[in-house]
Amino acid sequence: MSEHINEHFNTRIVLASRPHGEPTPENFRLERAPAPTPHAGQVLLRTRFLSLDPYMRGRMSDAKSYAPPVEIDEVMVGRTVSEVVESLHPGLAPGDLVTADAGWQTYALAEGATLTRKLNLPDLAGASPSTALGVYGMPGFTAYAGLHEIGKPKAGETLVVAAAAGPVGATVGQIAKLRGARVVGIAGGAAKRDYLRDELGFDVALDHRDPEFAAQLQAACPDGIDVYFENVGGPVFDAVLPLLNDFARVPVCGLIAHYSDTDLPLGQDRMSLLTQLILKRRLTVRGFIQRDFIALYPQFLREMGAWLRDGVIKYREDVVEGLENAPQGLIGLLKGENFGKRVVRVS
Amino acid sequence: MSEHINEHFNTRIVLASRPHGEPTPENFRLERAPAPTPHAGQVLLRTRFLSLDPYMRGRMSDAKSYAPPVEIDEVMVGRTVSEVVESLHPGLAPGDLVTADAGWQTYALAEGATLTRKLNLPDLAGASPSTALGVYGMPGFTAYAGLHEIGKPKAGETLVVAAAAGPVGATVGQIAKLRGARVVGIAGGAAKRDYLRDELGFDVALDHRDPEFAAQLQAACPDGIDVYFENVGGPVFDAVLPLLNDFARVPVCGLIAHYSDTDLPLGQDRMSLLTQLILKRRLTVRGFIQRDFIALYPQFLREMGAWLRDGVIKYREDVVEGLENAPQGLIGLLKGENFGKRVVRVS
Repeated sequence: MSEHINEHFNTRIVLASRPHGEPTPENFRLERAPAPTPHAGQVLLRTRFLSLDPYMRGRMSDAKSYAPPVEIDEVMVGRTVSEVVESLHPGLAPGDLVTADAGWQTYALAEGATLTRKLNLPDLAGASPSTALGVYGMPGFTAYAGLHEIGKPKAGETLVVAAAAGPVGATVGQIAKLRGARVVGIAGGAAKRDYLRDELGFDVALDHRDPEFAAQLQAACPDGIDVYFENVGGPVFDAVLPLLNDFARVPVCGLIAHYSDTDLPLGQDRMSLLTQLILKRRLTVRGFIQRDFIALYPQFLREMGAWLRDGVIKYREDVVEGLENAPQGLIGLLKGENFGKRVVRVS
Repeated sequence: MSEHINEHFNTRIVLASRPHGEPTPENFRLERAPAPTPHAGQVLLRTRFLSLDPYMRGRMSDAKSYAPPVEIDEVMVGRTVSEVVESLHPGLAPGDLVTADAGWQTYALAEGATLTRKLNLPDLAGASPSTALGVYGMPGFTAYAGLHEIGKPKAGETLVVAAAAGPVGATVGQIAKLRGARVVGIAGGAAKRDYLRDELGFDVALDHRDPEFAAQLQAACPDGIDVYFENVGGPVFDAVLPLLNDFARVPVCGLIAHYSDTDLPLGQDRMSLLTQLILKRRLTVRGFIQRDFIALYPQFLREMGAWLRDGVIKYREDVVEGLENAPQGLIGLLKGENFGKRVVRVS
């Protein structure tokens, strides 16, 4: 296949330096290089959509976490919807769409055997393939698994979720409504707040930027909070804490407010306040990432597939055009600028 | 039965004032009054043993918790082993021993129907009835239920428990050993430390007062910590945190280091440090009290009864003589002065 080498140039974005605090454009570098050549069993993928997700901030740091960091000068990691352009694997042919971990680049090699399934959205008529990076992919499964395994909202209980216009939060709230819970969604700004109430049917929607937010949250939860789906942290968590009921469950899948913290804030050390609340109210606070519950994934695809087909679960996408805009897309995402699942249309 | 009124004088200890910080003798008042007279269905109980437990500090405060506070001038609450001295209930006769919630007093009335079972230690040959307040009662069940429902130690895992010479901690460590875990116990002082190692067979025993404690704990846990049974808080928790493994479980049944806190300490606010650790390491931190798992109680009695009968589980008691010494007994307990389960021999 050597005659194909020069047909494709690979554009890629690497980690140029580790951020101190919020990432800046200087932490990224765009490079061009010849596209790689597949060997036996491999395929060459062209990236169609790249997912941007809060966890990527963590990979830019070298602090111990659940996944190794991206090394300096390495391509930024990321989930993609990719198209097979050359195949030396019998199960895949040019034109096939797959979900892959191709990262922030236009071309990537992959072992055909690792692309466990071709993208298959036959029942989601009209859905963009990028859905497989959002409500029908990792963020949607994060919501589904966190509720199924930890949050367990019951009919009549009150569930609170923040970043509720994002792909995890919006899905959490809608599934909880289907389970019979009362849902209070929190987002930044009036447009997102109105979307939660008017489009997604949440019982109450609040804007965390409102100076009266904490009082509004209390008023919105007259019977307290039974499930707080934590993907934010910061002042929202502070406002939630005093409202948690006995036996409340707090699945923790993200803490975007803290990803760029450089130092702990000074003041009272509230760590023992939290542990005492965990004791007195018999809370369950449990961290997870979706792959911890991967055995549930087939069930998720079936149930979510049916919900999407029937229009029961709604979703929004926020499309960034062009790989070169991915760094600014992630920087904005970490500030809450996105309205819906943020993906980059790469080609 | 009115002719019996003056046969008995009731000595009782009431809450005189709420403590600010650590309790003092002035927070208690000893009173004498005629013993009450049972009506139909009731029994008059004479207290044989009164249990002293860390949770009592919480009942002296009016902060919201899982149980209502003791009111000023009310008798302090407490679990007892009591003897029936008069009975107007067909199922109980004078001389019967029962476990009851008679509180800090020599005589109390109880509805016979609420004394669900007579004390029955037939298989624990030679055991003091006070065992029903310790390893064979609430503290033992706290250990059993917290491990069964939350801690779930597996063979080969490392479990750490503090206050390990106390009735909960000692039982936690011994049950975990029976489940095949490696057990690191923490206590205050050399005598307790040696007891854990030499009498209870813990793999490692540490003295939290040692200036090198944090380094010793790290050295004692070369493979990290899979279960931390939390009944202490404070500096022990601080030393445990960095050692927790992915998917570690932290049952929280007590935080004795914080019960007399009046203000949160100043410095860095580590609350978000804890939540970030919960996320990154996918920890489960869950508060409980033993009655949350009361359905397990019959199973506990069966299994613990066999362990005690066979001498597999060992225990120590720390007996305070005389009800009038109960206040000092509780004050000392909260400082870790007890060595084993602290009970008051009342009569």
